[in-house]
Amino acid sequence: MRELKSITKDDLNQEVTFIALLIDVKIKSTKTGGKYADLTVQDAGSKQLLKLWDVAEEDWLQRPKDDFPVIEVNALVGEYQGKLQLTAKNIRQVDKDSIDMKKLVPSSKWNFDQMRQWLEEFRDRIQTDPIKSLINEMVFQEPYYEKFCTYPAAKSVHHNFRHGILQHTLEVLKYCVVVATTKRLNQRQVDRLIAMAFLHDWAKIIEYEPLPSNKISDEGKMLGHIFIGSHHVMNKIELLEGFDREDALIILNGILGHHGALEWGSPVLPKSVEAQILHQADKLSGDVESILSFMQEQEESRETFTDRLWNMGTDYYKGGIS
Amino acid sequence: MRELKSITKDDLNQEVTFIALLIDVKIKSTKTGGKYADLTVQDAGSKQLLKLWDVAEEDWLQRPKDDFPVIEVNALVGEYQGKLQLTAKNIRQVDKDSIDMKKLVPSSKWNFDQMRQWLEEFRDRIQTDPIKSLINEMVFQEPYYEKFCTYPAAKSVHHNFRHGILQHTLEVLKYCVVVATTKRLNQRQVDRLIAMAFLHDWAKIIEYEPLPSNKISDEGKMLGHIFIGSHHVMNKIELLEGFDREDALIILNGILGHHGALEWGSPVLPKSVEAQILHQADKLSGDVESILSFMQEQEESRETFTDRLWNMGTDYYKGGIS
Amino acid sequence: MRELKSITKDDLNQEVTFIALLIDVKIKSTKTGGKYADLTVQDAGSKQLLKLWDVAEEDWLQRPKDDFPVIEVNALVGEYQGKLQLTAKNIRQVDKDSIDMKKLVPSSKWNFDQMRQWLEEFRDRIQTDPIKSLINEMVFQEPYYEKFCTYPAAKSVHHNFRHGILQHTLEVLKYCVVVATTKRLNQRQVDRLIAMAFLHDWAKIIEYEPLPSNKISDEGKMLGHIFIGSHHVMNKIELLEGFDREDALIILNGILGHHGALEWGSPVLPKSVEAQILHQADKLSGDVESILSFMQEQEESRETFTDRLWNMGTDYYKGGIS
Amino acid sequence: MRELKSITKDDLNQEVTFIALLIDVKIKSTKTGGKYADLTVQDAGSKQLLKLWDVAEEDWLQRPKDDFPVIEVNALVGEYQGKLQLTAKNIRQVDKDSIDMKKLVPSSKWNFDQMRQWLEEFRDRIQTDPIKSLINEMVFQEPYYEKFCTYPAAKSVHHNFRHGILQHTLEVLKYCVVVATTKRLNQRQVDRLIAMAFLHDWAKIIEYEPLPSNKISDEGKMLGHIFIGSHHVMNKIELLEGFDREDALIILNGILGHHGALEWGSPVLPKSVEAQILHQADKLSGDVESILSFMQEQEESRETFTDRLWNMGTDYYKGGIS
Amino acid sequence: MRELKSITKDDLNQEVTFIALLIDVKIKSTKTGGKYADLTVQDAGSKQLLKLWDVAEEDWLQRPKDDFPVIEVNALVGEYQGKLQLTAKNIRQVDKDSIDMKKLVPSSKWNFDQMRQWLEEFRDRIQTDPIKSLINEMVFQEPYYEKFCTYPAAKSVHHNFRHGILQHTLEVLKYCVVVATTKRLNQRQVDRLIAMAFLHDWAKIIEYEPLPSNKISDEGKMLGHIFIGSHHVMNKIELLEGFDREDALIILNGILGHHGALEWGSPVLPKSVEAQILHQADKLSGDVESILSFMQEQEESRETFTDRLWNMGTDYYKGGIS
Amino acid sequence: MRELKSITKDDLNQEVTFIALLIDVKIKSTKTGGKYADLTVQDAGSKQLLKLWDVAEEDWLQRPKDDFPVIEVNALVGEYQGKLQLTAKNIRQVDKDSIDMKKLVPSSKWNFDQMRQWLEEFRDRIQTDPIKSLINEMVFQEPYYEKFCTYPAAKSVHHNFRHGILQHTLEVLKYCVVVATTKRLNQRQVDRLIAMAFLHDWAKIIEYEPLPSNKISDEGKMLGHIFIGSHHVMNKIELLEGFDREDALIILNGILGHHGALEWGSPVLPKSVEAQILHQADKLSGDVESILSFMQEQEESRETFTDRLWNMGTDYYKGGIS
Repeated sequence: MRELKSITKDDLNQEVTFIALLIDVKIKSTKTGGKYADLTVQDAGSKQLLKLWDVAEEDWLQRPKDDFPVIEVNALVGEYQGKLQLTAKNIRQVDKDSIDMKKLVPSSKWNFDQMRQWLEEFRDRIQTDPIKSLINEMVFQEPYYEKFCTYPAAKSVHHNFRHGILQHTLEVLKYCVVVATTKRLNQRQVDRLIAMAFLHDWAKIIEYEPLPSNKISDEGKMLGHIFIGSHHVMNKIELLEGFDREDALIILNGILGHHGALEWGSPVLPKSVEAQILHQADKLSGDVESILSFMQEQEESRETFTDRLWNMGTDYYKGGIS
Repeated sequence: MRELKSITKDDLNQEVTFIALLIDVKIKSTKTGGKYADLTVQDAGSKQLLKLWDVAEEDWLQRPKDDFPVIEVNALVGEYQGKLQLTAKNIRQVDKDSIDMKKLVPSSKWNFDQMRQWLEEFRDRIQTDPIKSLINEMVFQEPYYEKFCTYPAAKSVHHNFRHGILQHTLEVLKYCVVVATTKRLNQRQVDRLIAMAFLHDWAKIIEYEPLPSNKISDEGKMLGHIFIGSHHVMNKIELLEGFDREDALIILNGILGHHGALEWGSPVLPKSVEAQILHQADKLSGDVESILSFMQEQEESRETFTDRLWNMGTDYYKGGIS
Repeated sequence: MRELKSITKDDLNQEVTFIALLIDVKIKSTKTGGKYADLTVQDAGSKQLLKLWDVAEEDWLQRPKDDFPVIEVNALVGEYQGKLQLTAKNIRQVDKDSIDMKKLVPSSKWNFDQMRQWLEEFRDRIQTDPIKSLINEMVFQEPYYEKFCTYPAAKSVHHNFRHGILQHTLEVLKYCVVVATTKRLNQRQVDRLIAMAFLHDWAKIIEYEPLPSNKISDEGKMLGHIFIGSHHVMNKIELLEGFDREDALIILNGILGHHGALEWGSPVLPKSVEAQILHQADKLSGDVESILSFMQEQEESRETFTDRLWNMGTDYYKGGIS
Repeated sequence: MRELKSITKDDLNQEVTFIALLIDVKIKSTKTGGKYADLTVQDAGSKQLLKLWDVAEEDWLQRPKDDFPVIEVNALVGEYQGKLQLTAKNIRQVDKDSIDMKKLVPSSKWNFDQMRQWLEEFRDRIQTDPIKSLINEMVFQEPYYEKFCTYPAAKSVHHNFRHGILQHTLEVLKYCVVVATTKRLNQRQVDRLIAMAFLHDWAKIIEYEPLPSNKISDEGKMLGHIFIGSHHVMNKIELLEGFDREDALIILNGILGHHGALEWGSPVLPKSVEAQILHQADKLSGDVESILSFMQEQEESRETFTDRLWNMGTDYYKGGIS
Repeated sequence: MRELKSITKDDLNQEVTFIALLIDVKIKSTKTGGKYADLTVQDAGSKQLLKLWDVAEEDWLQRPKDDFPVIEVNALVGEYQGKLQLTAKNIRQVDKDSIDMKKLVPSSKWNFDQMRQWLEEFRDRIQTDPIKSLINEMVFQEPYYEKFCTYPAAKSVHHNFRHGILQHTLEVLKYCVVVATTKRLNQRQVDRLIAMAFLHDWAKIIEYEPLPSNKISDEGKMLGHIFIGSHHVMNKIELLEGFDREDALIILNGILGHHGALEWGSPVLPKSVEAQILHQADKLSGDVESILSFMQEQEESRETFTDRLWNMGTDYYKGGIS
Repeated sequence: MRELKSITKDDLNQEVTFIALLIDVKIKSTKTGGKYADLTVQDAGSKQLLKLWDVAEEDWLQRPKDDFPVIEVNALVGEYQGKLQLTAKNIRQVDKDSIDMKKLVPSSKWNFDQMRQWLEEFRDRIQTDPIKSLINEMVFQEPYYEKFCTYPAAKSVHHNFRHGILQHTLEVLKYCVVVATTKRLNQRQVDRLIAMAFLHDWAKIIEYEPLPSNKISDEGKMLGHIFIGSHHVMNKIELLEGFDREDALIILNGILGHHGALEWGSPVLPKSVEAQILHQADKLSGDVESILSFMQEQEESRETFTDRLWNMGTDYYKGGIS
């Protein structure tokens, strides 16, 4: 079995066998009424296009596209316009339970155990007990903890991989704490800021469906993670004894306001310095990751500039990288 | 005792006595170190400026401006630049408990009993039981019902008077039902639309402080009525048996989306035809009321156009009214 | 002869015959120099794609696309990617005069006689004689009346069907009158508001070419229905005896301002409460119709949300409809 | 009799007498109930503030502010904060008929006879007879010609003086013809462009009231000069024999589109190269004049930059002028 | 040898031979693994698509697309969808040194010698010696003069042809001088305005690569012609004796500000009347040229309106041109 | 001598003597022709209003307001509307040379020696020699070093105090380095990022006049610190041997792009991940400081929210601070 990224031009005109997720199917037809398909397949390290000529009556290719079957593929390695092109010779569906799905879904490059340890260290910086309890119950307990550590933080653009919320939250926590220290916020402000950073994207465990789907749930589309998260946090706060009312208002405003502007989906503006720091730390984490992953994707092309990265509104210079 | 609006140029150079709320105090000083004050006083029918020369040590004039004392005023009626000007000769504070506050706060011109009856009629058009229960428990029960029937719907601009939420909700309900009927929505859509219309500004009973304050509460500023309302409705729905999940998503999205655009403070867009109707009915009710009350305020001036009404971005033609 | 919407998967692999308008032709070529065509055909109830292999020297397929020939088609019913696909076996052009064109053009679902009766009822609510004369001469007389009752109200998006202006005008009239009643406008205001509502889109009978073309005329593109309508109304008013000058200014401003904002093509803003009501009633009618017709179009797809509806800037939830 | 601009610090502590228009009155009161007034007076060359202490019962000071009485003033020349300040000792109203109003209203610095000659020369460049007739009848005949040669082109900002439309139209004509020549437009295009330039602000003779009022008429506010002008031109064109339909559409579109963008009040965009040239020539004339007149106004201040010129959104550097 | 624009339907089914630049190659593949290519070729007068079936191992077709080989083509003239279609029978690469490249690149229609003479005349209107020296050294000396006279002024849209900077600069100079004369600027202002006009797009000789590439250089993309030009001019000014400091600030501000608004890439706004004139003259030259060249391109189509011209945001009326 | 912030209500009705900068003078007049003045005075710790009744012929009060005389004041402490009010009894001008100006100008709260040490440490993290030389010559050498360490970073809003550039640069450096480390940029990227951070606001030593003026220089207003800084850096880079061209382009683009968007005054967008990090670190430093200093200013007021902070577009919650 080969990993997709191990297949190179050294394999030209040879056959390879690999296991992958089938994540997109486009069926096309020829004049003579025949059908062929452009498949997109993926494992943890790479995506690849796969031609399938003469599509037969394989029902499973017609299934709803959110189903993501696991397939074993035998394919011929060719080349087209200077790029590798695989042509399927045989495809068979594989039982998902027999497969370690981690091998088929891209994942954070950061060490998972290290990330969980860091997460605990940030929690332990909180000195206000009710705020610490809030984080313990919202993040470090099931049924939340596993999802929080596993889900992606976005549908595309940035941190859209396994452990995405976890890595993104750690980045945001780090940036927030550095600003708090530099600007000498007091401990109560720091505690609120850490809590907000932990919770700002928490509701993405409800807004998204589990990987490999990466689809937004109905609840996510209709209500959004900003409302869902604030709603759960407000309910949890009301159950915690001794939670200061002003802390509650500031933390909830921070979650509601973390997109930083009404037109970006926050129903209220950040009304505390903590909330403004959170917003900018969140934007910094997302934007920088989106540029880095985009430049890596486009490393191979011969141009000196990347294509336009839509969420940043510009292309990037590839000179001076290596 | 005189009502403020009964004082006219027929009273020139005479003394009048009236009871009013003191809603604003601006203290100014003269070169010789003396102080005088520009007071704003109000009763149910009108607002009036009141000059107070030689401000003494009346402590209560220095109190936080949100306190709104009730005062009995003896004043001389004068004229300045063609407008009435009252000059205080004597002011004394009156015990609030001895006064019927309704006489001092502007109120809806619609008949209160009639409005409550209409409100029940709209509720009774709902045929889906769990939705009807939602409205009964959120609107027609205490501790909500009295506030819902009493609070203003805005700080300024439109429906910023006693029974404001009630009148505005009735207007929105009426417009929504007419559109639903004209466009032949089915009963389930109608039920959801009526529920949304009932609940869209419900949380203003939390966002505002009680009249005569008309101030936004801390919770209102930090979280906003859109979040607060959706939060309470979601909690209530979860307690109601048999509430359809799709109805819940559509009703909550309707409340979250009723401002119609992210930049107007909705964290998600209206995602159903009901939600879009609600948004436009809400806007229609607010805008039309704000134009009508503004034109009435400016009726007296000699210009053929009003001043610019800031929320509508234009002035209005006063020709052809009478 | 079959109606297009009656053709279903029950007809698979069989031949069907139908009459339709040919509304679009895309000719494509194959490597071997052959040509085929993707045709779009339409009757009153549906649109359908039609493959035509081996396009010969049929001149009429090359004609200007605004000509819309009527064709009789004999086709084989197939399936492609889960959708019906018709493949033409024989196409012949049909004399337009031999056909009832109403069967080939989509039309309002409202009863035509009922609509005309309603239109008269709204006119009869006007109590100011010169205003009533204005409506009689601009709407209820030829050469206007037939066009007013027949033309579509838009090129796409909403009310873009036979009787479109008529249905849209009735919706706007209804919404306007409800608001006027609720907000207790006086009779003179109601008269002006009804007149504006009648006339706001009147000039679309000049801006558009007759169905089935649905094309904007040169005059329409260069001058727009807002100017053209106001121009004709102003000329008509000057011919009517006793037309009040203030009524004239308000009605003309209402027509000029009915798009509600400069950036939407109104050269002046609405300067009366009537004009603002008209603008919002117009928007309500257009937006709601566009959502409803779009959701109906997309009823069949298996997704829980529609595609993005461009004029509304969002997709719509399909849950909870049936 | 002195002209206002001839009064300088050389006159300090002396009395001066002058005739001026009274264009603004602000009455203020003192604690003791007395009244004083800040008057603004103007003659052809300058504006000046004038203090009037102890305002008595002069009725004419209370009149509607659009009346603009002519007054003869005897005043004491003082200084305040480094600026001249006049204090009225005596004011008497003067019969308007006894005064040459030209001396009291600012006027174009260009020679009037020269301007009229240039206007004829531009007309005579038109070689298409019906277009030339259009200009002759709309501009060079009464009741239009005198107003066209006299009215200001704006309420403020630019060309807001006697002969303003005339001077502005000549500037626009000149810029248009230079562009047309440089870019080698054909004669028919040149004829249309000259016609548009003549007519684009023509309706300001209806939109404004006559000087010295400089007020916008009710018709102007409700309908705007863009609609009014296009309406009159369209009616005139229909009376002219042999007027080419395409010329008519382009000229009307040019007038409707001369603000260049919907958000600037044009209901349609410029749809011909002539219309785009007209828009930019119009903007160039207006903007450059507004900067020059503003810099001249602010010449005296000691700052190296002017204040912010609101319509241009910036301040201007005064270095390097002399 | 044929020029491309000389090939018409009169040549149908015949073979033609021509020399052209190969400016784009799109390789496509067929099901059977074969390859074909859509080539774009160009000479001074026209662009043309060229089909190449059965692409072999011609390495030079795979080269970086910025290389622009010169090719001699033997092709069959066909027709497809009413348009000419050339199918290559033989292609061979030609040595660039053997070819007069002017014949393969589009060029200004203005006479080159005339343009250079005009350029000198504008320079000679400058009466301030250091400013004249600045223009002499920046424009009329090598290594700048040849590039200034040869480079295009844009990548697309307007003046994107040989001698583009030269023609565009002359247009801008002409418009600037007419405005300066009309508005009676003083000689020092005129001198600065002429200098700015000469220099505003000067740095496009660095921002662009030489024709036929028409590509933006790395330096151009990273720094932009606004910064690069101002930087070089500032350095040059510091070397010139007696250059007035205020002139320097105004000229540099004019270059920095010539896009007229921050959002169009000027880091500072125009702060002098000269700078505002320059900005508008620049926009006028660019916009008018873009409309004229676009309308010429679309002359042949049968529609009465052009397509939408993206930089102007609208389509154009083709009536009344001939 | 008292410091201004030491004067409290404990001093009521007593006389105090202090030395301060006179930073604003507003002269007003009374009806009787007398003059009084509202003065604003400042020392390092506070600003204070000061009434001066009966302004005599003190010439120095009329001087250009940028002169900022040092004054010794003897004043009576009073109270007005609950706030301290000082009334001058005697004012005399003091020779600036006899005063330690540091005591009269607000200054960074960070330790100055510590800041300079940190600055060196950041420089020493650079490992690319030519980049390090650039920083040494642009920052650590005179005539730049003293200004870089002394000037404010803004005219208002944030870091508008002595050592403002220094403190702001250190904040930006810190945030940049944390992001670079977290996201594992390579050493060359880190070196460029540190260089950009050092240089991004460098040109404010030219854009501003020295404290206490805090005025923008003519060069600053006409050219802006973005151009001026990039210009000097580009000239310096050209003098440095071995400076990599790609590093130069990225560093210059980073300085040009550090405002992050065209509409915020950057003529090009950030085209590298380093440049985007710099932009966001810059914004974070400025915004957070502006909120903190604004909240501190408004600490005393009795409201639960601050006024609106104009650059952030919102007010801030004062609950939960202490």
